[in-house]
Amino acid sequence: MKKAEPLYVVIVGCGRIGSIVATRLSISGNNVVVIDSDEVALDSLPDEFTGFKIAGDATEVSHLRDAKLDRADILLALTGDDNTNFMVSTVAKRFFGVEKVIARVNDPSNEEIFKEFDIEIISPTKLAALKILAELGVDVT
Amino acid sequence: MKKAEPLYVVIVGCGRIGSIVATRLSISGNNVVVIDSDEVALDSLPDEFTGFKIAGDATEVSHLRDAKLDRADILLALTGDDNTNFMVSTVAKRFFGVEKVIARVNDPSNEEIFKEFDIEIISPTKLAALKILAELGVDVT
Repeated sequence: MKKAEPLYVVIVGCGRIGSIVATRLSISGNNVVVIDSDEVALDSLPDEFTGFKIAGDATEVSHLRDAKLDRADILLALTGDDNTNFMVSTVAKRFFGVEKVIARVNDPSNEEIFKEFDIEIISPTKLAALKILAELGVDVT
Repeated sequence: MKKAEPLYVVIVGCGRIGSIVATRLSISGNNVVVIDSDEVALDSLPDEFTGFKIAGDATEVSHLRDAKLDRADILLALTGDDNTNFMVSTVAKRFFGVEKVIARVNDPSNEEIFKEFDIEIISPTKLAALKILAELGVDVT
């Protein structure tokens, strides 16, 4: 469903998660920029993705500037590397003033440090583990 | 909460997801066997894990026999490799007659083949993507 107010979303990391999210946001009428150092990953975005692609290392501030991160409503740091996600997220929040920042956290032991810096987190590991346990009827509360 | 009837669960893959699930199932009073070729991964299971560990390649049927897979209520194939998960899952179902088999699918394009073989799937990628989209208020139905 297209929203009245499209969001401007910058996504760092064009792996499987980044690709699904970027495409879906694009289809929903939002303005999306995807940054990844791997041009093959960017090229594999489907035709439905109508946003911009930037090939480059997102830990270099120049690429974040090229993405006009200062105007972004949302920054999603979705690479498979927690250090990269942490660096990009903190720079987005503190330097570019992005209000909503969500980072993928691959190693659950890193979650606390992200939370301390007021970064929302998504943990594929935890989501999968909790889903399996729920499926088996194990109480995890 | 401990169940009246403990489950006998064989888990292949002691990565982050496997480790969380194995530990939690163990704490909940179930009987758990974890198989992984990486002994370091097995060693890093916390003290709360009270099940058995088998160091070896789970695609070798002898290791599945050692795990007494024929008596298992549930087989969880949770490695990061879809081919391994598929092979172990089909062998568990067809050869050992395990009733409930859940496999982690890392590449969403592999989902169909698992489903065709009546294997339940868990996709950390999709779970994370859907969670992010829900968080951003994007309709994904």
